[in-house]
Amino acid sequence: MTTPSRRDLANAIRFLAIDAVQAANSGHPGMPMGMADIAEVLWNDFYSHNPGNPKWSNRDRFVLSNGHGSMLQYALLHLAGYDLPIEELKNFRQLGSRTPGHPENFVTEGIETTTGPLGQGIANAVGMALAEKLLAQRFNRPGFDVVDHRTWVFLGDGCLMEGISHEVASLAGTWGLNKLVAFWDDNHISIDGNTDGWFTDDTPARFEAYGWNVIRGVDGHDAAAIKAAIEAALASTGKPTLICCRTTIGFGSPNKAGKESSHGAALGVDEVQATREALGWNHDAFAIPQAIGQAWNAHAAGQARENDWNALFAAYAEAHPQAAAEFQRRMRAELPSDFLAQADAWIAKLQAEGPVVASRKASQMAIEAFAPLLPELVGGSADLAHSNLTLWKGSKSVASDDADANYVYYGVREFGMTAISNGLNLHGGFIPYDATFLVFSDYARNAVRMSALMGAHAIHVYTHDSIGLGEDGPTHQPVEHLASLRYIPDNDVWRPCDAVESAVSWKAAIVRTDGPSCLVFSRQNLDHQPRSDAQLADIARGGYVLKEATLKDPAGAPQLILIATGSEVGLAMQAAERLGDGVRVVSMPSTDVFERQDAAYKETVLPKACRKRVAIEAGVSDFWRKYVGLDGAVVGIDTFGASAPIKPLMQQFGFTVDNVVEVAKSLG
Amino acid sequence: MTTPSRRDLANAIRFLAIDAVQAANSGHPGMPMGMADIAEVLWNDFYSHNPGNPKWSNRDRFVLSNGHGSMLQYALLHLAGYDLPIEELKNFRQLGSRTPGHPENFVTEGIETTTGPLGQGIANAVGMALAEKLLAQRFNRPGFDVVDHRTWVFLGDGCLMEGISHEVASLAGTWGLNKLVAFWDDNHISIDGNTDGWFTDDTPARFEAYGWNVIRGVDGHDAAAIKAAIEAALASTGKPTLICCRTTIGFGSPNKAGKESSHGAALGVDEVQATREALGWNHDAFAIPQAIGQAWNAHAAGQARENDWNALFAAYAEAHPQAAAEFQRRMRAELPSDFLAQADAWIAKLQAEGPVVASRKASQMAIEAFAPLLPELVGGSADLAHSNLTLWKGSKSVASDDADANYVYYGVREFGMTAISNGLNLHGGFIPYDATFLVFSDYARNAVRMSALMGAHAIHVYTHDSIGLGEDGPTHQPVEHLASLRYIPDNDVWRPCDAVESAVSWKAAIVRTDGPSCLVFSRQNLDHQPRSDAQLADIARGGYVLKEATLKDPAGAPQLILIATGSEVGLAMQAAERLGDGVRVVSMPSTDVFERQDAAYKETVLPKACRKRVAIEAGVSDFWRKYVGLDGAVVGIDTFGASAPIKPLMQQFGFTVDNVVEVAKSLG
Repeated sequence: MTTPSRRDLANAIRFLAIDAVQAANSGHPGMPMGMADIAEVLWNDFYSHNPGNPKWSNRDRFVLSNGHGSMLQYALLHLAGYDLPIEELKNFRQLGSRTPGHPENFVTEGIETTTGPLGQGIANAVGMALAEKLLAQRFNRPGFDVVDHRTWVFLGDGCLMEGISHEVASLAGTWGLNKLVAFWDDNHISIDGNTDGWFTDDTPARFEAYGWNVIRGVDGHDAAAIKAAIEAALASTGKPTLICCRTTIGFGSPNKAGKESSHGAALGVDEVQATREALGWNHDAFAIPQAIGQAWNAHAAGQARENDWNALFAAYAEAHPQAAAEFQRRMRAELPSDFLAQADAWIAKLQAEGPVVASRKASQMAIEAFAPLLPELVGGSADLAHSNLTLWKGSKSVASDDADANYVYYGVREFGMTAISNGLNLHGGFIPYDATFLVFSDYARNAVRMSALMGAHAIHVYTHDSIGLGEDGPTHQPVEHLASLRYIPDNDVWRPCDAVESAVSWKAAIVRTDGPSCLVFSRQNLDHQPRSDAQLADIARGGYVLKEATLKDPAGAPQLILIATGSEVGLAMQAAERLGDGVRVVSMPSTDVFERQDAAYKETVLPKACRKRVAIEAGVSDFWRKYVGLDGAVVGIDTFGASAPIKPLMQQFGFTVDNVVEVAKSLG
Repeated sequence: MTTPSRRDLANAIRFLAIDAVQAANSGHPGMPMGMADIAEVLWNDFYSHNPGNPKWSNRDRFVLSNGHGSMLQYALLHLAGYDLPIEELKNFRQLGSRTPGHPENFVTEGIETTTGPLGQGIANAVGMALAEKLLAQRFNRPGFDVVDHRTWVFLGDGCLMEGISHEVASLAGTWGLNKLVAFWDDNHISIDGNTDGWFTDDTPARFEAYGWNVIRGVDGHDAAAIKAAIEAALASTGKPTLICCRTTIGFGSPNKAGKESSHGAALGVDEVQATREALGWNHDAFAIPQAIGQAWNAHAAGQARENDWNALFAAYAEAHPQAAAEFQRRMRAELPSDFLAQADAWIAKLQAEGPVVASRKASQMAIEAFAPLLPELVGGSADLAHSNLTLWKGSKSVASDDADANYVYYGVREFGMTAISNGLNLHGGFIPYDATFLVFSDYARNAVRMSALMGAHAIHVYTHDSIGLGEDGPTHQPVEHLASLRYIPDNDVWRPCDAVESAVSWKAAIVRTDGPSCLVFSRQNLDHQPRSDAQLADIARGGYVLKEATLKDPAGAPQLILIATGSEVGLAMQAAERLGDGVRVVSMPSTDVFERQDAAYKETVLPKACRKRVAIEAGVSDFWRKYVGLDGAVVGIDTFGASAPIKPLMQQFGFTVDNVVEVAKSLG
């Protein structure tokens, strides 16, 4: 072999995928075999990156929305020269390898986002492309396009069937994200077989209806055709591009090409051999001939690219030092140096002034206080701006070209919104927030999970947090949602009881850079709670003693502990008043954060010696058994709510001082 | 006033809505005001129903997908003569009224489905239209179209922005549901204002891409144009129809028409008066002039319609007595008389034979055993038929005209699938099942909640139920899902430990007619557990003693109780063996069902005297605190999983006999 052909280069991807899946006897060979030619042209002729520095800020972003084809991406990273040696590919899908079953951004360098849950990759990519647009608007200067890269997405029929693809493709069209290019792996096969029976959309027409530039009928196995299509995409102005690539799943496999049997299982030893013969690949498993390896290696070209950009950026920094420093701060995800002090000053002021407002209003006040300090804060609501209270004085729509554009009118698209948040953060340069009613966190649920799994610094704002929202009724009244969100690993849920705790929760969500926070706010007004300085500081620990019991023996345990969150803290305080001296009230705005405290602190808040405990929260009661055990009681709600004004509702469902007192007394 | 004009008739809707929202000082007047003319033409000229019998099987179905406009539907029901007196409208959104904030099928006669969560109404309607198609295929005979009705849907911009609208519109097109007619309330306004900033789709082109018949540019305030559009829709063959109605939100309000201010709040006393003047409606609040009331009343016409159908059905019953009896059985939602006996025989046989299979395989065996007895069982999978194991020998695609069509290839559309299930059941005649991986229940979550809220008899099958699925890794490994699904009120979750419990869970899900069940199955093989007849019978109680402790005092409490579900029951049995005589093992396939047992039974299973309890489940541990309290322990998983074969995974996360024994011993 002298100069490898394009097909040779593509076959290197195919056989790394085939061999790795065969070695693991688990995985998805069909997609890498089908998209290898497209990937080869894209990565070798267009993809602007530097394998030696996967974090170069101006790299192109590549997203594998059809993440089950992970071996395609691992093959690309390995071949291009990322730090992913062949041993890792040989350990595909094994414990501790850097080649898990689906691409994981927190495991493997060069993976921009974790994919597998279909449709979310393209949504993340829309977020990344939006991030690029917004950073370019803010930071580029004439002659200095320091932010100027593309976002490339591979996606399959599955992504296109998912509803989220509709939500985010619509937004990408509205926003005119012309640096976003998606390749549709149009192979007519999904897991259940030929898609004729369940996927008959005219997809090109559908995307044209979203305002996309659609390039139809590209032969996904013809390098020249692929190249021409990408060049046409690059010429697009004001529109994202969908390149429709007709491909054969399992391309090259004599007996499984074009069939679902190549999709999700190893080809088998015999078929692997037959495919080697059919494609003329006379190399051992995992062996890449030197000429092919050299043709793929992108180290030198990548370093040259970054060097050029570094030179550009150096000149930019000279001409625009403040902008350059700010850009670097944002891309390093560092908060402004004065943020913490300013936030604490605001919180102290709130504690002193004691406004009685709905916590959703307190949330808006916090945004109003913090957002001017944090240009990286970009957010919006799923068509509930005036209910979620997500707008602030400095809000400017991201649909504009304004350098300060920072507000996203997401429309009624909760799932797409949340996955776009993830993409905005993963790109770098942004702390995104999004918002809807708490009950509709259901619509976005897997994207919240993905925030947590990926460690995305995203802030999910959920208002109208209980039956306390009133007349809209049970379709709109969350019951199980608080507990369910808390159960997502690595997800911090906050449900503050007043304006002060609301501000602290916002601060915590901003400061927590390695994962998401869900901030849960009330529709109705909440009492202000007095606090000492120590209590004020302890809010950040997730749970703290808001009202101490008055005991004869000050070293003893309280006779009864009332534990409450959010709107029920005020209720607990009133009940404690009625119940008398021996009662402690614990405010627990974040069980997630409280659980991370050391055992000694937790013991001071919930001493083991006191088993008489009542938890009060307008949500499912069983969640609180972890704090009240079998001996305590919970005032919660384990049925759906009802449509009525708040007062009769709270009465009906037992969120009254009388009922709390009665339940507490029933403990004997 | 002599003969009321069409506009007069429509204004009756408008003012009932205006007055009710004003009285409640809460609600959404804009949509009813905007869609009143469309509703008037549809209901008075086309809608085939009988207000005297809201359960007449061949009635048209009407779905308000934009459910916040509930007052439109209440006004229609009241005016047409349903049992919804004016007092109920005066009590709009009050506790105990039949006019809750959003339409609730379980509260108000004539409401076909509960709407409010946007996009799900159109999805339910697709399910209803599919039900009509399938029932017609099975039961109609030449000359006897005993199943022959339409499904009408109102929807707004919000529904069209939601991803689920994509999923279900695509399926409706693929299935050619030509009796489905949707009216798009194209008013250019959503809650955040003019939709130009966030909803720029060419919606007609989009629906044409799905294979719909699209009627563009209808003036939604011109009765003649609306009538002509509906007639064109009725002439459609093989395609569902979208009628695009240009409307003005808040039509008639001098100062709020065309503005988002009319959307979600009362108009205010002054504007109500101004609207009365503008529309020439000189009647008191809630007053409907007699001529208008008479023109609306559909009692006589409805009874005549049903009488005609009754005559047709009588003749049908004479000609086809078996089919008629079967049709009536299915519409009454009665199981075949021999079902219970046959199911029990099958379960007893399984107990005797003791197959060692994955519970997903056991699920398929149960479907194979039960489905031939239950032609009402219609189901499918979101493109995972061969993973979820939802196909059986008698499966025939619903895309066909076959009388026995019963299998739905949903494609990768979990949310749409689940909401279509709800619609299939709400229509009557079907027990639907749907399936995906447990982790992707997230995508469908709010539709599962709606199953439970509505009391829909739907069966949600979730396989690949833990890290035990292995190599696909954390994106595919459920952790918090079991607990989160259990927390949905009125939702029965089952996680069986072997083939026998799997069959019992299927039987329970079929027998439970007033709500949904989630059946959760393993990917991996599970041991068979021996049982006495009494133990076999107790599976249906949700939790039971699978292995009794051997005690010196047989009346005493066990020294230790291991509580487990699903794949962890086998582990508990092995650990119990190792731990010695005093250990009881409780298998708890359904905590939801167990909780409904009487206190005495629960005490026999989990005696208060034994606080040494260990729960074992490959899911979040805190859920189990309700059974083990603060003194017990849980072997669970509170982090995301990892990509690896099952064996090292189970080792890594502590699901080993050694670890369970160690945890149990640590209780002292």
